[in-house]
Amino acid sequence: MNSNTSALLTDLYMLTMLQGFFHEGMEAPATYEFFVRDLPPERGFLLAAGLEQVLKYLETLRFTEQELAWLASTERFDQNFVDYLAKLRFAGDVYAMPEGTVFFPNEPILRVTAPIPQAQFIETRVINLLHFQTLLASKAARCVLVAPEKLLVDFGLRRAHGAEAGLLAARAAYLAGFGGTATVLAGKEYDIPIFGTMAHSFIQAHDSEPAAFEGFAHAQPNNVVLLIDTYDTEAGARKVVEVAPRLKAEGIAIKGVRLDSGNLAEHARKVRKILDEGGLSRTNIFSSGNLDEHMLRELLRSGAPIDGFGIGTRLDTSADAPYLDCAYKLVEYAGHPRRKRSEGKATWPGRKQVYRSYNAQGRYMQTDIITIEGDVLPGEPLIQAVMKGGQRLRSAEPLHESRERASRQLAQLPEHLRALDTTPPFSVTISPALEALASQADREVAS
Amino acid sequence: MNSNTSALLTDLYMLTMLQGFFHEGMEAPATYEFFVRDLPPERGFLLAAGLEQVLKYLETLRFTEQELAWLASTERFDQNFVDYLAKLRFAGDVYAMPEGTVFFPNEPILRVTAPIPQAQFIETRVINLLHFQTLLASKAARCVLVAPEKLLVDFGLRRAHGAEAGLLAARAAYLAGFGGTATVLAGKEYDIPIFGTMAHSFIQAHDSEPAAFEGFAHAQPNNVVLLIDTYDTEAGARKVVEVAPRLKAEGIAIKGVRLDSGNLAEHARKVRKILDEGGLSRTNIFSSGNLDEHMLRELLRSGAPIDGFGIGTRLDTSADAPYLDCAYKLVEYAGHPRRKRSEGKATWPGRKQVYRSYNAQGRYMQTDIITIEGDVLPGEPLIQAVMKGGQRLRSAEPLHESRERASRQLAQLPEHLRALDTTPPFSVTISPALEALASQADREVAS
Repeated sequence: MNSNTSALLTDLYMLTMLQGFFHEGMEAPATYEFFVRDLPPERGFLLAAGLEQVLKYLETLRFTEQELAWLASTERFDQNFVDYLAKLRFAGDVYAMPEGTVFFPNEPILRVTAPIPQAQFIETRVINLLHFQTLLASKAARCVLVAPEKLLVDFGLRRAHGAEAGLLAARAAYLAGFGGTATVLAGKEYDIPIFGTMAHSFIQAHDSEPAAFEGFAHAQPNNVVLLIDTYDTEAGARKVVEVAPRLKAEGIAIKGVRLDSGNLAEHARKVRKILDEGGLSRTNIFSSGNLDEHMLRELLRSGAPIDGFGIGTRLDTSADAPYLDCAYKLVEYAGHPRRKRSEGKATWPGRKQVYRSYNAQGRYMQTDIITIEGDVLPGEPLIQAVMKGGQRLRSAEPLHESRERASRQLAQLPEHLRALDTTPPFSVTISPALEALASQADREVAS
Repeated sequence: MNSNTSALLTDLYMLTMLQGFFHEGMEAPATYEFFVRDLPPERGFLLAAGLEQVLKYLETLRFTEQELAWLASTERFDQNFVDYLAKLRFAGDVYAMPEGTVFFPNEPILRVTAPIPQAQFIETRVINLLHFQTLLASKAARCVLVAPEKLLVDFGLRRAHGAEAGLLAARAAYLAGFGGTATVLAGKEYDIPIFGTMAHSFIQAHDSEPAAFEGFAHAQPNNVVLLIDTYDTEAGARKVVEVAPRLKAEGIAIKGVRLDSGNLAEHARKVRKILDEGGLSRTNIFSSGNLDEHMLRELLRSGAPIDGFGIGTRLDTSADAPYLDCAYKLVEYAGHPRRKRSEGKATWPGRKQVYRSYNAQGRYMQTDIITIEGDVLPGEPLIQAVMKGGQRLRSAEPLHESRERASRQLAQLPEHLRALDTTPPFSVTISPALEALASQADREVAS
């Protein structure tokens, strides 16, 4: 069983609600939108990601015989309803901001219109997919903004929350501008460049560091990056200098060294000096170990001579903000606008579009306005049709295209949003048309 | 392709190291141990979880033809090595603390002994599996300690980090003492009780709350739990009282109501009064919305009349501590103890055992001592053999047995570790035999 694609990967209340809709014969078209309510403390913007996985989920959604039999066996559902589930497919329309688009609170990045059982049922997995990749791409973008000239590599699979998190973190980080990942399967599945050298255990299994370095170099002469901090970082660097001539005689160049502990800036400066004096000025320094965007900024500000960074745990768990306050909400049913008014959770009704304006030179984002679909305003509309009647309108966007979009969008961020610290929020306004629709929705609901 | 079981779900450096071992003919037995270096700020103990998934991974590990062909196509590996990978199986020994065991920093919860390529290769996925479930079970245990008499339900799939995180979070929370989960697939895969009612959208899709309540009740007369905060919580409760006699006439009882927003304690008191005065004193109040162990404690201290809690995002992401500082480290190679001495990351060498002592009445854990295997000390040895030569020594432990162990272990926690706040650490000492082995390891390494 592939649990990642199971239709049972959902909350039970989707099924109990569907049973309600089924018994009441409710299947009028409903529109739901996915949006983020508020930004985490240290975020000034978010980067949309995960749409491709959502579309794939919608295309392939169906219950297997075995799943249906299990549902029937729980005695929670009557057989008519289980037979109905057997035929459930997603045949609705989807509008979305393309992956790699910068967005802000209350702006929908996905809109689904379908008969209400279909549009409702998909909620759990749609949120699960969009939330995580958007969270990760937004975290990774901060690293990219801080270190635009450096090679950044995702090292986080081991502490990612499970298999899918590790894979999708690699994808989201690459989309946001990382150079690659250590996760082999992400290389195979998403054609992302993969990077990797050795762990401390490789050194420790050998009787000495020089023996480990030479053994490794002989096994992969084109990818010689040596980990030098197992015992003493500077001593490790001197051993690299010691083995270099022997390897050079065999035609093997030492591409780089890796530091993984201690004061990275201080070690990097000392190691750079040892390598340069030892004739290894073309050997790069790669660094890892508890890194995040703040540590990156500190290392770069200190002028540490580090050429690339492996960023793991704090990226893959989005450690400072491990979740977004996001929702997938009903905004229209059977042609009528709907909104939720729960305390602190009120939402905007109706199908929406977002228009973005740039400054006079067209170089920086200046303001967004959220309005209702069909209300044409100045600016660039961000939400596009991507699926009609359950069919994609175009084939899957290659990941490098999403990555290029993200790069262009990050270049268009206003200066104050490029900082790591809390900044004045980007200007997002609600159009008069949307305000009017909200009042209409409130009047319509008999409460 | 099921990405959760792919042998490529690993870091590239596992493969480059294996290529090194292969070329050097290194295949002597190596022992690695998984442990946590330090506790997150708000944790006084951890609960071991994830062993079952690790054993399954080890039993089934192999590269498919397609994976091998892809590896060859990357031109990073020579054909002899790819042929060697085709035959790679895990045939080693595994010792572990059983799932549901309370443990502390530096105590190994898993020990693997196998030819070094096998023991090394599994590192990434072993950490990925043990880390996440241990993280989650430890977070869930805090909720259970705070609210031992309440029904606690995992609601977190949507904001869990991907599919596997959602599934394994449900498993880990149940193991730690939760009553169940909303995640349907976790019910099917792990036989965990599932819970679910309705979302706000179900209410909003109807013309009025009473219409929604009655529609839902007719569709599942045995599971009538009604969400009452979509528009106004107390008004919602009065509508429940209004429809109750009509439903009662049809033989349908209202099992509960759910609150999901606002001041939960205040709403619960008002709603309890409305329900009691309306003759619904047997209707439960279930509550959800941004809950964690602190919020639970606050609600219970305030005496809020709430019978059960749905705990989602902050549980499934372990929001206050989204990762553990854990490692899987080489401790012995070819019969010689090994340790890493990197700054701030030094480890203890050799195969270890942990002995736990209890107070005189045998009721509370008093102290742990970490020593080398074979050094018999007073107390209960926590680490047991679970796999020999790649074969399990017994069949998979049923989840309810791990859950019962967790429950017994939590009951044996010393009082100060049951608090939510930072507490004096539990006493864990290093035996003289282990200290001596560490000195020996340092002497042996030519550095």
